[in-house]
Amino acid sequence: MKFMENKNVNLAGGYWKNKEEVNRKITMEAVWNRFSETGRIKAVTFDYKVDENFTVHHFWDSDVAKWMEAASYFIGKGHNEFTERMEYLVDGIVNNQMEDGYFNSFYQYPGKIGGRFADRNMHELYCAGHLMEAACAYYEATGKDRFLRAMERYADLIERVFIKEESAAFATPGHEEIELALVKMYKTTGKEKYLRMARFFLDKRGTDRKDYGDRWGIVGVGLYSQSHIPVREQHTAEGHAVRATYLYSAMADVAKIAGDEELEAACEKLFSDIVNKKMYITGAIGSSHLGEAFTVPYDLPNERAYAETCASIGFAFFANRMTALKNDASYADVAERALYNGMMAGLGIGGDDFFYTNPLEINLSHHGKDVSVKEAEWLPITQRKKIFDCSCCPPNINRVLASIGGMIYGYENDTLYVNQFAESRGEENGLWVKQKTDYPNDGKVIIESNAERLCVRIPSWCTNFTSDVSFKEEKGYAVFDGGCAEINMEMKPVLIGADPRVRDNYGKAALNMGPLVYCIEGIDNKDIFELSLNSDASFETEYDEGFGLYRIKAKGARKTGDGKLYSPLNFNKEDIDMEFIPYNCFANRGKSDMKVWINLA
Amino acid sequence: MKFMENKNVNLAGGYWKNKEEVNRKITMEAVWNRFSETGRIKAVTFDYKVDENFTVHHFWDSDVAKWMEAASYFIGKGHNEFTERMEYLVDGIVNNQMEDGYFNSFYQYPGKIGGRFADRNMHELYCAGHLMEAACAYYEATGKDRFLRAMERYADLIERVFIKEESAAFATPGHEEIELALVKMYKTTGKEKYLRMARFFLDKRGTDRKDYGDRWGIVGVGLYSQSHIPVREQHTAEGHAVRATYLYSAMADVAKIAGDEELEAACEKLFSDIVNKKMYITGAIGSSHLGEAFTVPYDLPNERAYAETCASIGFAFFANRMTALKNDASYADVAERALYNGMMAGLGIGGDDFFYTNPLEINLSHHGKDVSVKEAEWLPITQRKKIFDCSCCPPNINRVLASIGGMIYGYENDTLYVNQFAESRGEENGLWVKQKTDYPNDGKVIIESNAERLCVRIPSWCTNFTSDVSFKEEKGYAVFDGGCAEINMEMKPVLIGADPRVRDNYGKAALNMGPLVYCIEGIDNKDIFELSLNSDASFETEYDEGFGLYRIKAKGARKTGDGKLYSPLNFNKEDIDMEFIPYNCFANRGKSDMKVWINLA
Repeated sequence: MKFMENKNVNLAGGYWKNKEEVNRKITMEAVWNRFSETGRIKAVTFDYKVDENFTVHHFWDSDVAKWMEAASYFIGKGHNEFTERMEYLVDGIVNNQMEDGYFNSFYQYPGKIGGRFADRNMHELYCAGHLMEAACAYYEATGKDRFLRAMERYADLIERVFIKEESAAFATPGHEEIELALVKMYKTTGKEKYLRMARFFLDKRGTDRKDYGDRWGIVGVGLYSQSHIPVREQHTAEGHAVRATYLYSAMADVAKIAGDEELEAACEKLFSDIVNKKMYITGAIGSSHLGEAFTVPYDLPNERAYAETCASIGFAFFANRMTALKNDASYADVAERALYNGMMAGLGIGGDDFFYTNPLEINLSHHGKDVSVKEAEWLPITQRKKIFDCSCCPPNINRVLASIGGMIYGYENDTLYVNQFAESRGEENGLWVKQKTDYPNDGKVIIESNAERLCVRIPSWCTNFTSDVSFKEEKGYAVFDGGCAEINMEMKPVLIGADPRVRDNYGKAALNMGPLVYCIEGIDNKDIFELSLNSDASFETEYDEGFGLYRIKAKGARKTGDGKLYSPLNFNKEDIDMEFIPYNCFANRGKSDMKVWINLA
Repeated sequence: MKFMENKNVNLAGGYWKNKEEVNRKITMEAVWNRFSETGRIKAVTFDYKVDENFTVHHFWDSDVAKWMEAASYFIGKGHNEFTERMEYLVDGIVNNQMEDGYFNSFYQYPGKIGGRFADRNMHELYCAGHLMEAACAYYEATGKDRFLRAMERYADLIERVFIKEESAAFATPGHEEIELALVKMYKTTGKEKYLRMARFFLDKRGTDRKDYGDRWGIVGVGLYSQSHIPVREQHTAEGHAVRATYLYSAMADVAKIAGDEELEAACEKLFSDIVNKKMYITGAIGSSHLGEAFTVPYDLPNERAYAETCASIGFAFFANRMTALKNDASYADVAERALYNGMMAGLGIGGDDFFYTNPLEINLSHHGKDVSVKEAEWLPITQRKKIFDCSCCPPNINRVLASIGGMIYGYENDTLYVNQFAESRGEENGLWVKQKTDYPNDGKVIIESNAERLCVRIPSWCTNFTSDVSFKEEKGYAVFDGGCAEINMEMKPVLIGADPRVRDNYGKAALNMGPLVYCIEGIDNKDIFELSLNSDASFETEYDEGFGLYRIKAKGARKTGDGKLYSPLNFNKEDIDMEFIPYNCFANRGKSDMKVWINLA
């Protein structure tokens, strides 16, 4: 299928519309302000004095570019409050682009240009890719082409240096991104050259000695940056999770456009490896802070989870591309999980603070326990921050929340696919669709469209999916003749268990309702680490205005011992009320213990 | 009570006798050989050429001194195979002692002497303390006094520099040990001065600005080395676990000798804090590798346990002193736990390889998982080693296994206390005792003695303690009129639970039998992380010749999911046979997964 483009889909209400508005009014402004204060805006526009007080970081371009991409999406929908800033940024970039097409605010800082294209880990092609994505988005939103033309000149330089002359010190980038950006360049400009470049970087990866000396490589040479073997031979997800999912996204893009079955097969295996062995229940991935990386199967620590917000986003990108490639709802299902939970935990309810890492458990007593020594055990932070030194996640949230529309509908021939549920209207290529729903607070969805055939995703969490008209099931979709249906997905709290091989979750359960993972916080529950639930516990739901989502109440138990640290098994259990909130709402009411995986009684 | 001295108690058979013999024939030789190969012996005897290939480490003296202490215990019991080497070492030390009494092979290395008594963390007084302990032991074993006199001269220098002149750069040592050593000097020489010195160092601790600048101090100044507040005010166990227990041992010594109730009260609180909140079921302590330290209550990770062998030993020392101070069996009970499990796990069955850290869980798949990045997540090693760079544990095992006799019997007035169970004979001060038993393989113990009153420890693990003659219970002892009793302690496998606040053990149980903690290993059980036990499981025992202890068999279950990583609770359970071995025998048959805390079904 082809996804209906974001610019052709308007959110009309509900959860994602609300978040889109928070993003436009608060998050976009907050990120812009922090990027201004920290020098990122000045750096990219070269609007600074050269002195010892100002230094440029080597991936600031990408931070700003992601904000620009988001701003472009908003401008494309008529929100002109970002136009002036966009033009200012485009001016800065276009006016400072080098004669040969090069643009990088770090290497163009006085005295540094000699180092360009010399260090595989300095994110040049990563920054270039994000600028290209922004340029494509801005062109498609406005029709103005000077940013896109500038990025085409940059792409031409990259083609010359990396492909024609092979004169760079490395063969492929340490941080993937350019690959999927080149696919966008191809789609936006129609120029085959960019698709060929994307394929070049994909197929070159893991094959060139020049890339093996990268500073991360020791035993597993290149594993960190997915450069250990050719991408077509990669069947297990390895290394830095954001890099990985950006790479896999590009692989899925090329597999679809080029009908490349070998790439497609690799994508399926990589996706399956993540979903079946390396994904948190929140859809977050990359469980280790070391290398921000995937580790071994079933190694999913809760308290020490890395689970970077950007990795959830990258995984959703990969999942959407797999949906388009395979016409299979199980992929869109994973995108939903990652977006509602892994990603949305990364944004505070106020819209102006962020998590980079997203733990599934917080035990406040463990923070600061090592006060006696200088070293510190790594633990995720417990409160969102306004900005990070490495602040890739906030503008990534900007662009995703500005483009949820592009993740909802797909079509192929006369069939309309409904991949995500959100009150919205879409129209593209003569096809129109209207969706009415209060999802995820309610499982009722009314679809009207002029399609001849309608495929509605049956979420994996849903055990009772009904409709006013009959349907058959196919690849995870309910398939209807005609373009209209009213469906009902029963929304109820369900206890989910993890594969027993997930050592950290053995004997525990996570409470889910619809696509949402729930958690308990210390602020609502006393001594959360002593609490347990019966596997047949009953639940009550209660709408929470502040969250815009339901809380869930349950009868649980507090287990207490006999006062000794170790005794023959014989615990007291006291009945207590437990209160769950959506995981994506945690840490919004001050510091608190938190737990997703609850002990079973 | 006073403990009957090691030299007056002979082990006659059973577990500890066997380990004493392994120690004498294998471990003592292995440690000597490794210390010879690594330069430790040469260093302490100054039997080396000064060149760039030879450097001395700042706590090698203590390593050798602990071996010397062990050798002295053996010599005292007529094992003369260590005599020649002892004389060689004593020659080296006495001949190279400085005019003013100073001895330290690190600072006496050419060019370094100017740095003496200048750095609180360079273990000078720690080394001095171990040398003093060795000198006392050698004097008591042989009556030869030149080593003791040399150490008296050293003690006199320390008194002058630290107490009279206060001219050292620090007020108290960064690593405690001298305090308890000075108590031994007092007991051996009868000179009050050494007791005063011990009290000086105890009372000075945590009070002097000179000690606050130590390199470990950040927020919790001095916590690492128990220097944050005066020792009498210390009520929670903090910082480096070995340092802590050596300090607490000295505090208990002085409390008893001086009748110091304030110190006694502090000792009780510290002991209780450890036993009730910070001790592994194995008696191991110091759960964090950062600072080899205690952390917050109930923070007892299994896989990432530090649990240093020396800390179990130090804890047993502290427990024995508390037993003597309080005449309370509950302390000796903890010594038993730490010796059989925490310490004995540190020695391979072959007697020549060692663990420094003693995990309660090994998941081999987690080792080497970070091959893609240079950093590595800290995990304990999985196989014992012949020697460590910091090889404090092996000679500590040497001296404990050479002096178990001194931990068994205590007496006060006409009462004989049996604190530990081991086939043995003791005689001191006109009191004699014979103990016949195959403990811990059998719970039958026959005591004969000429005491008027007999107190036999009722172990905390024992729920069925019977005797041929009647007794009453007092402070954890069965109190008999007369000096003889035949007792029976029912030995059966029991599932033990941890306080629900121990987050890592919630919903799990550890199998114990008698004083022994059990574990499962991958070599005996497939996929150990998927296994569970019912809380009412039944067990069968089977003697294992190689271990000299019983194995335990049980019916357990293997839990399997539906193939998905996350699904509504619904697992398949397959009955399987589980095989447990004593924890102290783990990692003797190659690399293997291992687990003490078993999931309950």
